[in-house]
Amino acid sequence: MRTRKTAAKTEAAEIVKVQETPLHGVKIIPLGGLEQIGMNITAYEYEDSIIVVDCGLAFPAEDMLGIDLVIPDVTYLKENIDKVKGFVITHAHEDHIGSLPYILPQVNVPIYATKLTMGIIENKLKEHNLLKQTKRKVIKHGQSVNLGCFRVEFIRTNHSIADSAAFAIHTPVGVIVHTGDFKVDYTPVFGDAFDLQRFGEIGKKGVLALLADSTNAERPGYTMSERTVGKTFDNLFAENVSHRIIVATFASNVDRVQQIINSAIKYERKVVIEGRSMVNIITTASELGYINIPEGILIDIEQIKNYPPEKLVLITTGSQGEAMAALSRMAASIHRKVSIVPGDVVILSSTPIPGNEKHVSKVINELSMKGAKVIFQDTHVSGHACQEELKLIYALTKPKYAIPVHGEYRHMVRHAELAQEMGVDKDNVFVLSPGDVLEMEADRAKVVDKVMAQGILVDGLGVGDVGNIVLRDRQHLSENGLLVVVVTLQKYTNCILSGPDIVSRGFVYVRESENLLDEAKNVVEDALDKCLNRNSADWGKMKNLIKDSLGDFVWKRTKRRPMILPIIVEVDA
Amino acid sequence: MRTRKTAAKTEAAEIVKVQETPLHGVKIIPLGGLEQIGMNITAYEYEDSIIVVDCGLAFPAEDMLGIDLVIPDVTYLKENIDKVKGFVITHAHEDHIGSLPYILPQVNVPIYATKLTMGIIENKLKEHNLLKQTKRKVIKHGQSVNLGCFRVEFIRTNHSIADSAAFAIHTPVGVIVHTGDFKVDYTPVFGDAFDLQRFGEIGKKGVLALLADSTNAERPGYTMSERTVGKTFDNLFAENVSHRIIVATFASNVDRVQQIINSAIKYERKVVIEGRSMVNIITTASELGYINIPEGILIDIEQIKNYPPEKLVLITTGSQGEAMAALSRMAASIHRKVSIVPGDVVILSSTPIPGNEKHVSKVINELSMKGAKVIFQDTHVSGHACQEELKLIYALTKPKYAIPVHGEYRHMVRHAELAQEMGVDKDNVFVLSPGDVLEMEADRAKVVDKVMAQGILVDGLGVGDVGNIVLRDRQHLSENGLLVVVVTLQKYTNCILSGPDIVSRGFVYVRESENLLDEAKNVVEDALDKCLNRNSADWGKMKNLIKDSLGDFVWKRTKRRPMILPIIVEVDA
Repeated sequence: MRTRKTAAKTEAAEIVKVQETPLHGVKIIPLGGLEQIGMNITAYEYEDSIIVVDCGLAFPAEDMLGIDLVIPDVTYLKENIDKVKGFVITHAHEDHIGSLPYILPQVNVPIYATKLTMGIIENKLKEHNLLKQTKRKVIKHGQSVNLGCFRVEFIRTNHSIADSAAFAIHTPVGVIVHTGDFKVDYTPVFGDAFDLQRFGEIGKKGVLALLADSTNAERPGYTMSERTVGKTFDNLFAENVSHRIIVATFASNVDRVQQIINSAIKYERKVVIEGRSMVNIITTASELGYINIPEGILIDIEQIKNYPPEKLVLITTGSQGEAMAALSRMAASIHRKVSIVPGDVVILSSTPIPGNEKHVSKVINELSMKGAKVIFQDTHVSGHACQEELKLIYALTKPKYAIPVHGEYRHMVRHAELAQEMGVDKDNVFVLSPGDVLEMEADRAKVVDKVMAQGILVDGLGVGDVGNIVLRDRQHLSENGLLVVVVTLQKYTNCILSGPDIVSRGFVYVRESENLLDEAKNVVEDALDKCLNRNSADWGKMKNLIKDSLGDFVWKRTKRRPMILPIIVEVDA
Repeated sequence: MRTRKTAAKTEAAEIVKVQETPLHGVKIIPLGGLEQIGMNITAYEYEDSIIVVDCGLAFPAEDMLGIDLVIPDVTYLKENIDKVKGFVITHAHEDHIGSLPYILPQVNVPIYATKLTMGIIENKLKEHNLLKQTKRKVIKHGQSVNLGCFRVEFIRTNHSIADSAAFAIHTPVGVIVHTGDFKVDYTPVFGDAFDLQRFGEIGKKGVLALLADSTNAERPGYTMSERTVGKTFDNLFAENVSHRIIVATFASNVDRVQQIINSAIKYERKVVIEGRSMVNIITTASELGYINIPEGILIDIEQIKNYPPEKLVLITTGSQGEAMAALSRMAASIHRKVSIVPGDVVILSSTPIPGNEKHVSKVINELSMKGAKVIFQDTHVSGHACQEELKLIYALTKPKYAIPVHGEYRHMVRHAELAQEMGVDKDNVFVLSPGDVLEMEADRAKVVDKVMAQGILVDGLGVGDVGNIVLRDRQHLSENGLLVVVVTLQKYTNCILSGPDIVSRGFVYVRESENLLDEAKNVVEDALDKCLNRNSADWGKMKNLIKDSLGDFVWKRTKRRPMILPIIVEVDA
């Protein structure tokens, strides 16, 4: 297994000095930046053609205070814009499509996707007023699209959102299989199962490289079929006939919603869809025929009062404990239409995404306090392949090269081991870092270059204007608060006309700190006296002196280090 | 099951108006405040006697920015200080002993605990210079201590720290069993197993109430014996004979460390203990005879270089991904003595405590990038009883009343259901909120009062001087940063002598924001013009005007809401 140079996390990937004939092959470039939180965007390049698979966003890591989301750096695409033929999209999850509205204005090329995927993308483009200027083409599973010297074939897979696709990318040097996120579901709720036959056929003819989903590479066995959750719903509906049922799940899991609706029909309940993203996606899925909701089943949330609780099911967002989602608002008693009452049965049809555990637990505690019964066991299956499914894909495709994608580094490393267990040569397995350029011929492959692939932070309307210094300041402020010191000096004489005055925020209670701040004022005055006595008009030095003396004093007295912001005002009077 | 009133989270618990003869019984008062993060401290009161079981701290919730830890509010104990006879401590985990150094100066009463528990408490008291003035008495399992009208009997249990105890509290109205944190380990690594016989004997005579550990009440089955982890270590040592092994675990799990050392002896490796808390606890445990380390096994970290890697085991802190712990520093290449090299085998002997998942994952990713093999499966067992063990305790004690303790609300609710399944009358199960006063006679029990039991935040040296306003400010600053606006006015005339100047921190890059801040200055100038034209010298109004106009402007332009801090300086010139 070849991995990035291991010495330092931030170091550029190993650039192999090519002694032999220079490579002339396909370049594979993961552009989804940041080490810990990958978003999915991969460029494939051959001569004058570039295609881009997916265009996802990432949600901010814990230490990215105040950041809304993270999008990829597409400098490389902009620099090679004449080559870029289009985006091909595997499925409609945010980490695969979420950056399109931010990237399309810079890289305005056509989008190719299956019907539901395109429907959800179009909703997004509408919101950003980008629909008209964006070329789009719906591709069916089994069809191909020619993009420059590439032919991209869409192959049916299964995932936790309907209409997902893998790509067989036919290139001048061989076929590369890019799975997207997938599981192998022999009995999917909607549509056909994973097209394993086509995978076998392509494999038989020879696959140059496999880029497959690593998310569950640490988990042995198989991921269960989505249908198993439907059985659990039926049982839970049967066991709780006399209470209202509220089910929270991922808005995009249309098949899950279908199964909840099926149980509702069976047990003669009306269904309310609640939460903005849930309403949006179910509307689109319904219009496009991906979900079957018989007439008369859905009711508006305003009509709840017209039905007894045991005749109702609410399907809602908030299964990850997101603070502003519908379920969290119900749990916190700030939902405008729904109040949780004792006896309510709340089913969390999800598992917490790593990092969300505490938020989910908070919602469960709040619901429990209100007397609701909360159920979260056997109510979810993953959308990602476990080890045995990955092995199946390796057995069908038998790739020469393996490039684990999608997952944290730990998952890609486990996937790399698994690829070797499945017969891929150790030297032919590549765990890439964002920006690595892997060039591949029929029988040689090397990381030959490194391009920009840092994530770009989006905060409010600002894209890329918040960086490390700003984040460091926010961290400092969040932990220790702030002391602002204001001094007004007379121009030329440097006499103090006013101050020093100290204002605090996020430090300690004002009433507790009054004495402390009075003393602190004296400390700053003493420091200024020394400084001004020396006739120093060097404001930089004065500011540092204020920072140091006040910082020392506050640390000694409180063992805290608030940010100290000295402001010197000069007045010509 | 009687629970707190369900209508509003912050509402006081139901205070039952006693129509009948007033109760005259034992009061049970959980004082470990905060809804989401309980620390363990429970007062038992009868007439002129109060005893306090445990005195723990809590680690801050995610939204308590900059807070180091949370301690209980012991106002009730201080108000009744003449009654308070002592602290009886179940075991030496931080959430049961950590607040002693903060509470003892206010409530200076003797401490009673088993030997190892007392040893660890004494280390803590030494650090805070409290050893001399604190009365302490070591109690053996099977012994009792008389405290006012209570007799507290120490009974052996098992837990993830040695020498843990449950209490049979003999009171004038009956025996109350308080388990502390426990599991039932038939084959403990050190010392005897849980004293089930004594539980049975007490139960046969009649138990009034059971207060038992709820942590794992959602988990079916049994918790595995600590010894099973020892077997896993042996296997892992056998499989990885040619590499260095690093094991991270909880410092306080002395039995776990013993088993790692046993494997090291078997496979002829030297052992390095690394991390301050690990060194402290293992030293104490060794001095008191709770761990057996043959001579010549331990080496100093400086001696690592004298041994080949395959002859070394490092036992270290950091299994929860704590940023400053030894393992995290190794993973981040900032440990001064140990560098991770390819081939290192790192065993995480722990599961992430809820909320720490991302931190642990970060460490695993960093270790993987450095080429280490990270193992975390079957390397840990819980220290808390699962459902079958809880049932066993109910079967042995057959209490009249059940009061679930220790766990989040969701766990206590599940425990309450389980108590009913085990035959406790629904009306005799009480899920208490912090501060609830449950009064209990032989055949009546009611929540009769509510006392102060909010958690108190500790930040640096400050105890209780950071509250909601400060935390809200920190939250605001952390998400949006800060704009300080300084204006200097001439006294009497209100002429602007200087400014408005705007300084930003944690907002956006300065170079990005220059234009924005220039425009913002104009906005503030316009606002001030209006205000000063009207000859208004109302500084409060001026400040609000600055906040509103600048806030609106910045929101429109950036969709962000930085904190705005207007500072008006008046100069008599």
